[in-house]
Amino acid sequence: MLKIYGMPVSNNVNKVRYTANAVGLDYELIPVNLMEGEQRSEEFLKLNPVGKVPVIQDEDITIFESMAIARYLVNKTNSDLYPQDLKQRAVVDQWIDFSNIHVQGMLTRVLFNRLIAPMVGAEVDEDSLNFGLEMLEQYFPVLDNQLGVSTYLAGDNLTLADINLVAILDPAQAAGVDISGYQNLNKWFNSIKQQEFYQKCHTDYNEVLAQMQQ
Amino acid sequence: MLKIYGMPVSNNVNKVRYTANAVGLDYELIPVNLMEGEQRSEEFLKLNPVGKVPVIQDEDITIFESMAIARYLVNKTNSDLYPQDLKQRAVVDQWIDFSNIHVQGMLTRVLFNRLIAPMVGAEVDEDSLNFGLEMLEQYFPVLDNQLGVSTYLAGDNLTLADINLVAILDPAQAAGVDISGYQNLNKWFNSIKQQEFYQKCHTDYNEVLAQMQQ
Repeated sequence: MLKIYGMPVSNNVNKVRYTANAVGLDYELIPVNLMEGEQRSEEFLKLNPVGKVPVIQDEDITIFESMAIARYLVNKTNSDLYPQDLKQRAVVDQWIDFSNIHVQGMLTRVLFNRLIAPMVGAEVDEDSLNFGLEMLEQYFPVLDNQLGVSTYLAGDNLTLADINLVAILDPAQAAGVDISGYQNLNKWFNSIKQQEFYQKCHTDYNEVLAQMQQ
Repeated sequence: MLKIYGMPVSNNVNKVRYTANAVGLDYELIPVNLMEGEQRSEEFLKLNPVGKVPVIQDEDITIFESMAIARYLVNKTNSDLYPQDLKQRAVVDQWIDFSNIHVQGMLTRVLFNRLIAPMVGAEVDEDSLNFGLEMLEQYFPVLDNQLGVSTYLAGDNLTLADINLVAILDPAQAAGVDISGYQNLNKWFNSIKQQEFYQKCHTDYNEVLAQMQQ
């Protein structure tokens, strides 16, 4: 059976779990205790020399990087989540990379400084935090406009681009990033969280955080 | 004919130019003057609402995000640069995302603070610069080890993962990031710059920077 290494608090791990659920693949979630630095253990570095989750093992292959894994799972199952059509696929790839590199890159700065730094006693970098918030104010309207044009990011059907983005936005609220003013984005976000691939993991990601803080 | 919007100084634009060369597609390079902020003009934002280069137009489609474009070009031409085999493709995707998100993400911090900030009179963020340098010291050994295991990043053949990484590393020297101590990486880098897809653009990326500074 497919093995996914990681924890439900990692939104990169959730990209893979949501995708596995959406394509109907069973998996075993193998915990990696990020708080205790288990991702930097000698044993884990053999799986992923970069020392990050998620990693998967499937048949004879080990893969890291969440969206490389997600693409592998949809390719393996010939899922419509990643259209065969050349141009449709390009649009899906475009929104995956925009969300991953730009939106997640900036949200990570905010998350780190507002949520993780206080938790682990690291110094807050106000410049980095403010830069992140400023860039998100440029990026959210792009997503919001797109979700006014089509029901999902890449058209009228759910694709890997939506699964990727919902996982990216999961921790936004906890980091004090309010998307409710972006009406299309907010509507899409609340609606997509009702879908089975999401609900199989949790009703809401904030539950995962609440459990951690107990 | 394929239209690529951008400038040769942008390494994201070069990912697309190198790929077009490697798959044998002719293109027209349409200049976007980044120094004068043309990527934020009303006209350009109609092409790419994110205001970044590269963007391509091909037949009836417009795509942004460099590696979404590169994947489109190799899919369109059924190029071996992006293997059809499920597992081989996953390995290529893995190294693309690792290089793009982590290596380029950190190199961009260094580039910005050492090269661009002094050029445009922006404030240098020492914390960001140092964090970038520190993370690159973790990431380069991963690439160096991999290039000791196989000739190219994803095995014995050139793939999209190599084209992506060479473009990412092009401005490293100008940013004072020395990779010569990573012997496998350095050897691969110097050797790949001799290939035709690269030489069709320039003998060395530093020439492009030298021309800009004249």
